Amino acid sequence: MKIVQTEFSISTKKRNQLMDITSQVRSAVKQSGITNGDVIVYCPHTTAAITINENADPSVSHDLLLTLEEVIPHNRPGYKHYEGNSDAHCKSSLVGCSEQILIKDRTLSLGTWQGIFFCEFDGPRSRKIYVQIRGE
Amino acid sequence: MKIVQTEFSISTKKRNQLMDITSQVRSAVKQSGITNGDVIVYCPHTTAAITINENADPSVSHDLLLTLEEVIPHNRPGYKHYEGNSDAHCKSSLVGCSEQILIKDRTLSLGTWQGIFFCEFDGPRSRKIYVQIRGE
Amino acid sequence: MKIVQTEFSISTKKRNQLMDITSQVRSAVKQSGITNGDVIVYCPHTTAAITINENADPSVSHDLLLTLEEVIPHNRPGYKHYEGNSDAHCKSSLVGCSEQILIKDRTLSLGTWQGIFFCEFDGPRSRKIYVQIRGE
Repeated sequence: MKIVQTEFSISTKKRNQLMDITSQVRSAVKQSGITNGDVIVYCPHTTAAITINENADPSVSHDLLLTLEEVIPHNRPGYKHYEGNSDAHCKSSLVGCSEQILIKDRTLSLGTWQGIFFCEFDGPRSRKIYVQIRGE
Repeated sequence: MKIVQTEFSISTKKRNQLMDITSQVRSAVKQSGITNGDVIVYCPHTTAAITINENADPSVSHDLLLTLEEVIPHNRPGYKHYEGNSDAHCKSSLVGCSEQILIKDRTLSLGTWQGIFFCEFDGPRSRKIYVQIRGE
Repeated sequence: MKIVQTEFSISTKKRNQLMDITSQVRSAVKQSGITNGDVIVYCPHTTAAITINENADPSVSHDLLLTLEEVIPHNRPGYKHYEGNSDAHCKSSLVGCSEQILIKDRTLSLGTWQGIFFCEFDGPRSRKIYVQIRGE
């Protein structure tokens, strides 16, 4: 059993944005040399998140961001957090700050339409992503 | 330390449906022969999810689906995804496509009222669930 | 590779409350003696959850609870669950009942502003939290 930890950085361009990070995760898995096991993709930021969804049609990302903005508007009467980005913190907790994907025969066991996305909710910013690959 | 990967299939019957898959996961854990560790339950589909919630009273599943349908309606003005199932993709990211449960003394460490559910948001369909058991 | 499982209890004081449990998790990690790996923090209750968010400004917790209460009100017409706490079950599935954090050099790899929170949605109650540390 082996554990490999690594990280990479990205730069987001908008306040709300989904960035496909599947290729960076796939590359980390390949470099780990691990054949079977799993990978944890972890976002160490409180106004961003990690999700898995369709990366074939970019409209899916658009529709997810639209839904989040309508359900959790930027300014909700009653918000107390002084930075004015409470919506971003709420989106982070609802989407969640990590995902895990199985590894089989040195390959990410993603479904046909699944990609891994970094979700920016308070950009543009420079962001880090932690990756841990475990297995044998 | 041992890693066992397996999968099983289910057929959903409705567009929105929660299916209790606790017994299938429990059976996979038992067959793995692993005493202490954890199991990952992973959904490789982008219009479905995995959640853990009460499986004693079926009204809890009803009320969760009702809430999701009211918060994320089937047709939101502004949706661009051509397949007309953007709501299902959004529900998938909010509920999340995997869960993990600890294993202790060859038993799933679920709480008294907890069961594991496959969440169908764009059925009826035939679906796969990936399972990985790790431990010793 | 080593697996350590432990648990601890907390008492919540309100119906909806976020309790910072970072120090309890940090202490479990330290006691495990594991240098590199990860920790799973798991809530075995169906009307509560675990999340990671900012623990510097308590207003973030306030704003997250406010958002959840407005998006998922206590009484939604159509709820069937006889216990009258369907909102709590829905919040549990949306926030999720577990989180995982990497461990590096015997330290939790949390981001600068991240803390680990137990989310009570149907308190006040006595609650348990399961913790599993894995690594080497």
